[in-house]
Amino acid sequence: MKDLFYQYIQTLQNQITEALEKVDGSATFREDSWKRKEGGGGHSRVIENGAIIEKGGVNISAVHGPLPESMQAYFKVEKVDFFACGLSLVIHPKNPMAPTVHANWRYFEMYDASGNCIDQWFGGGLDLTPYYLFEEDAQHFHLLCKKACDKHHPNFYQEFKDKCDAYFHNAHREEARGIGGLFFDYLKANEEYSIQDRFDFTTEVGNSFIEAYIPILEKRKSMKYTPEQRTWQEIRRGRYVEFNLIHDKGTLFGLKTNGRIESILMSLPPSVQWHYNHQPEEGSEESKLIDVLKKPKAWV
Amino acid sequence: MKDLFYQYIQTLQNQITEALEKVDGSATFREDSWKRKEGGGGHSRVIENGAIIEKGGVNISAVHGPLPESMQAYFKVEKVDFFACGLSLVIHPKNPMAPTVHANWRYFEMYDASGNCIDQWFGGGLDLTPYYLFEEDAQHFHLLCKKACDKHHPNFYQEFKDKCDAYFHNAHREEARGIGGLFFDYLKANEEYSIQDRFDFTTEVGNSFIEAYIPILEKRKSMKYTPEQRTWQEIRRGRYVEFNLIHDKGTLFGLKTNGRIESILMSLPPSVQWHYNHQPEEGSEESKLIDVLKKPKAWV
Repeated sequence: MKDLFYQYIQTLQNQITEALEKVDGSATFREDSWKRKEGGGGHSRVIENGAIIEKGGVNISAVHGPLPESMQAYFKVEKVDFFACGLSLVIHPKNPMAPTVHANWRYFEMYDASGNCIDQWFGGGLDLTPYYLFEEDAQHFHLLCKKACDKHHPNFYQEFKDKCDAYFHNAHREEARGIGGLFFDYLKANEEYSIQDRFDFTTEVGNSFIEAYIPILEKRKSMKYTPEQRTWQEIRRGRYVEFNLIHDKGTLFGLKTNGRIESILMSLPPSVQWHYNHQPEEGSEESKLIDVLKKPKAWV
Repeated sequence: MKDLFYQYIQTLQNQITEALEKVDGSATFREDSWKRKEGGGGHSRVIENGAIIEKGGVNISAVHGPLPESMQAYFKVEKVDFFACGLSLVIHPKNPMAPTVHANWRYFEMYDASGNCIDQWFGGGLDLTPYYLFEEDAQHFHLLCKKACDKHHPNFYQEFKDKCDAYFHNAHREEARGIGGLFFDYLKANEEYSIQDRFDFTTEVGNSFIEAYIPILEKRKSMKYTPEQRTWQEIRRGRYVEFNLIHDKGTLFGLKTNGRIESILMSLPPSVQWHYNHQPEEGSEESKLIDVLKKPKAWV
């Protein structure tokens, strides 16, 4: 299963970077391969200063070895060995009308002292962070999420959409990071589903990414915007940084398992502002976004 | 003691904001007062878009009530009431040749169920974060730190300088946040020192701030700089954000005790950049700074 999923994310990395380069038309991804001292490594592909994409990364990694002590409590296990592989991506477009997107699909195994696999599961999802709210974009993105889910179980979309809203929540600001999408974790084999079923679902969601995001980026990438709208984008990117550094378990996992810092923090936006006590004008487009972030909506 | 120290930080807030406004010559601090639902509140003074100071805050607060559950484990206590007051400041100058400065002086009390004070201590310090290294500035800053310490104990400077280097450390980057200064905490009454002695020391350090920082700001505020040097400053400010959001216990304490978000996060720099895998050129001024951050120096 680990080989199968690793091959899958390799192929998906190629497909996604190719699709994004085509939209950008100017910059290309450069690849940095890295090794992890304790076992494994990764291939980070990063794009910067494109015509459309200001900064983005589409990274795959596969790491293994003893589970770090700091992570044992987190997973509620004793000393075990682990294997984890996944694809993580974050795309920050230059145009404030185009949303930032994040996605991740991962597979995890744990082993006892004799090397027997004692646990295995899939996790992942995708979520959208607009700076200006276009309802049709939110609907399109969620519709693609729902379509992927509905092929596997009629309740999956609602369940994983709710998990996404709960997870990507900037608790200290009492607002969502963005308009959500899907988030699922610990998808294990059980009486209803085999681990192959979990693989099929996770890859179904992975395969829906390009169609979920690229048309939105195409539609927004050349829209006109003002310097004030750009400033608003940079202020909102500050909230993105706050979430990733204060709350995100993926970032924490990377830092605690001695992952490659530059690959973990490639998710941070290229240029960001923090103004003291910034409040959008009532009734403005900016405040319309905040309203939706304060109270997640049903999009489909 | 709590009234005495609160009066002290009120006066110090006036002195420091006055001194900074004089250097800036253009912008002034605006004050926001806030109340905390569970007890207490604060007075935040913030300056933005000055001629010299791009963003800065000099805040005082005094909060009290039941110690939040999430903080009980941190202080290794059961259910207790607490009182905490302090002054916190961060100044981000516009000119990349001028260093960012942070300082904090605080006093803490804890009470049993009958309201008897069962513990009390002082904490605080000041530290400097340059973007370009001027050795004479680092020496001046540390000399003022040492002078304040030496009046109280010949070992204090070395002890609290080392604590500062240890505390303001971006572990995930394996580098210091800046060139240090002083950091002390849990200064309690003991056989050698009364709580009044601890007050005298903490206020001695507080009183040295203006002389430690203002002459440096004066000296650097009008130096010429290039757009590339400004970019470097913004990239380094990203490390400042990383420290404050990932590692800083003060930020954590504020977020966990339901402090005012905008007052806690006023420490974040106004404009910040994250480039993927940025490395300064070997032998450059930028790499000279990194060398010192990788290996803290004895400045006096």
